[in-house]
Amino acid sequence: MQDFQFYTPTMVYFGKHMEQRVGSVLKEHGYSKVLLHYGQGSVIKSGLLDSIKTYLDESHIAWIELGGVEPNPKIGLIREGIELSRRESVDMILAVGGGSVIDSAKGIALGLANGKDSVQMQREQLMPTHHFPIAVVLTISSAGSEMSSSHVVTDPETHTKRGLSHDVLRPDFAFLNPELTFSVSKYQTACGIVDTMMHTLERYFTEQKDAPLTDTIAEAILVSVKEAGIIAINNPSDYQARATLMWASSLSHNGLTGCGKTAFFPAHKIEHDISGLFDHIAHGAGLAVIFPAWAKYEYNNDVEKFARLAVKVWDIAYDEEHPEVTALRGIEAMSNFFSAIGMPRTLEELGVPKESWETLASMTTNNGSSSLKSYRPLGKREILEIYHLAT
Amino acid sequence: MQDFQFYTPTMVYFGKHMEQRVGSVLKEHGYSKVLLHYGQGSVIKSGLLDSIKTYLDESHIAWIELGGVEPNPKIGLIREGIELSRRESVDMILAVGGGSVIDSAKGIALGLANGKDSVQMQREQLMPTHHFPIAVVLTISSAGSEMSSSHVVTDPETHTKRGLSHDVLRPDFAFLNPELTFSVSKYQTACGIVDTMMHTLERYFTEQKDAPLTDTIAEAILVSVKEAGIIAINNPSDYQARATLMWASSLSHNGLTGCGKTAFFPAHKIEHDISGLFDHIAHGAGLAVIFPAWAKYEYNNDVEKFARLAVKVWDIAYDEEHPEVTALRGIEAMSNFFSAIGMPRTLEELGVPKESWETLASMTTNNGSSSLKSYRPLGKREILEIYHLAT
Repeated sequence: MQDFQFYTPTMVYFGKHMEQRVGSVLKEHGYSKVLLHYGQGSVIKSGLLDSIKTYLDESHIAWIELGGVEPNPKIGLIREGIELSRRESVDMILAVGGGSVIDSAKGIALGLANGKDSVQMQREQLMPTHHFPIAVVLTISSAGSEMSSSHVVTDPETHTKRGLSHDVLRPDFAFLNPELTFSVSKYQTACGIVDTMMHTLERYFTEQKDAPLTDTIAEAILVSVKEAGIIAINNPSDYQARATLMWASSLSHNGLTGCGKTAFFPAHKIEHDISGLFDHIAHGAGLAVIFPAWAKYEYNNDVEKFARLAVKVWDIAYDEEHPEVTALRGIEAMSNFFSAIGMPRTLEELGVPKESWETLASMTTNNGSSSLKSYRPLGKREILEIYHLAT
Repeated sequence: MQDFQFYTPTMVYFGKHMEQRVGSVLKEHGYSKVLLHYGQGSVIKSGLLDSIKTYLDESHIAWIELGGVEPNPKIGLIREGIELSRRESVDMILAVGGGSVIDSAKGIALGLANGKDSVQMQREQLMPTHHFPIAVVLTISSAGSEMSSSHVVTDPETHTKRGLSHDVLRPDFAFLNPELTFSVSKYQTACGIVDTMMHTLERYFTEQKDAPLTDTIAEAILVSVKEAGIIAINNPSDYQARATLMWASSLSHNGLTGCGKTAFFPAHKIEHDISGLFDHIAHGAGLAVIFPAWAKYEYNNDVEKFARLAVKVWDIAYDEEHPEVTALRGIEAMSNFFSAIGMPRTLEELGVPKESWETLASMTTNNGSSSLKSYRPLGKREILEIYHLAT
């Protein structure tokens, strides 16, 4: 087990109607004015936003609002949020939504606490040092941003989508009511299932062989998500399945599944450029295509681990003589599962034309000058081979 | 899944030499004077205490000290610690030791922050409201107190050992270096293995059938502890096994293994009176005797869950026609495992004479007037039956 730090300070309120506590909890902890941050209207249509405003009013928490967060949140709105929050002297950013809204809220908090925004910090290779309070009312189980240290932002000027991770970005409070996800579409539910699995799997395949506790916990999360995922897709109002998916999305990305290991995250990095360039592509759908292709490209470098996953999660019998067959069957089973819940199998199905491959691979490798960490370095040529395996 | 709150704010520094960071981390977070709290000399003999003093000195953190914590920490020393800390205006309690030292440190912190000590609060049925900072340098993997909300204290006047749990008791920092546990004796290592397993198992057997994610994570922890436990007993300096046991001890009791469930903790409650009355009895050894007896008494009320544990953790084949046989074989396998690592099997081996049963069962049930929660209420008569099953 490698040395690690583990810090998950988020106070989680999990269960039915938990969003109703938002006002009283924030009041109890001394907050007085929040920026209510949300997306493009679903929380308005559902009535959730109005309810949240009521809960805040009832607890005498003042609020201002900034909606309009798009999927793949943009730095422009974050800058607007920083200005607005500063002008209005809010003492907390309250995100009502999913991963994009939370990531946008984290961007605002980062800017408020550190003087520079995340695109500036990444350009200047700076790391944040200060935290600004963040609370979350979650509406989709997927990104795990409600407990994670991650923040992903897109800069439309450069079409780049980049991540920044730091403990100062972990939310202070997360209100997780699985009922709020009953109305999430099958497609978005499936994207969330894939994203949650990926946050676990991208930490599972690493060079460390000596973190068995972390690996068995990862397998526990994957099995639970697989089983609950099928139920939730078939019956969107199954509370227990939605609850499992919601809690799994938080645990998969709060650091627990990476303790004692150094993760590569190659599929995320390859996918970020795809959904950065093609704004309509959902991150989870992109991962459902890229991760199995990456796995087919890399399994030979860690046959036993890929075979172990096949046995523990995908119920494949272990082939003593040919563990590589077990490994490949596991990858196939994973692909079949993604397909069964409605995810695309190929780049073409995903909506990525072959003509864009060259551009994408260049973006991911800084014009071929850098490579991604994986079992072996993935440069432009290797990434193009992975695209080929995704056809 | 039942509604739950989850709050694990402890900042964990895990790995080799992590205790060396104690001074710099506390300085960075603004602390200036600590009460160094420890046990009965092993940290003096090993040189660890002197090293910690040096790390504090190097970071210009002032310290005073209070040693002498006994196994099953006593309220007397806690009261002394409260007085001393108040007089000397310390801003943090730094525990260097295992569960007893940490629990004693928590008792001091509780008293400092809340005006009354934990025995007073329990007598008056009050709950704490305020937190006082606590840091931990852990020297034994067992109690999980380094991340937990629990605090157990013994009042020698009444020979009672009682627990109090509240989020204000969670430590702020935990420095977890598995190397510091290399010198823990085989017996104490075994006690720690049992205690860690119990913190998971006592949350595993509950009335809720709908928390599969929590249950599979629990099984992951149990399997990992079982495998690492045997290695650590046979090779006390195996870093990876010690690391697994240490991280498992923290995860088993930080709340993760109980999310969405209401635990009974009957074996802990029965055992607390045993080691409260017989001060030489180690908590883990007591649990190794009581838990299997409790399981034999209760398995009929949840055959499928006991059978599931047998299959998932103890590698017993599932008997479709007689799941109760699978369940019993699992309990037997657990008992055999405890015995294999050097734990007692019976109350007699534990050092509890039959003459004391009546007294003990009376203590646990307030002279027969109350009962413990379990699948069925455990009054005095039922607890005596459990003692019988522990012979």
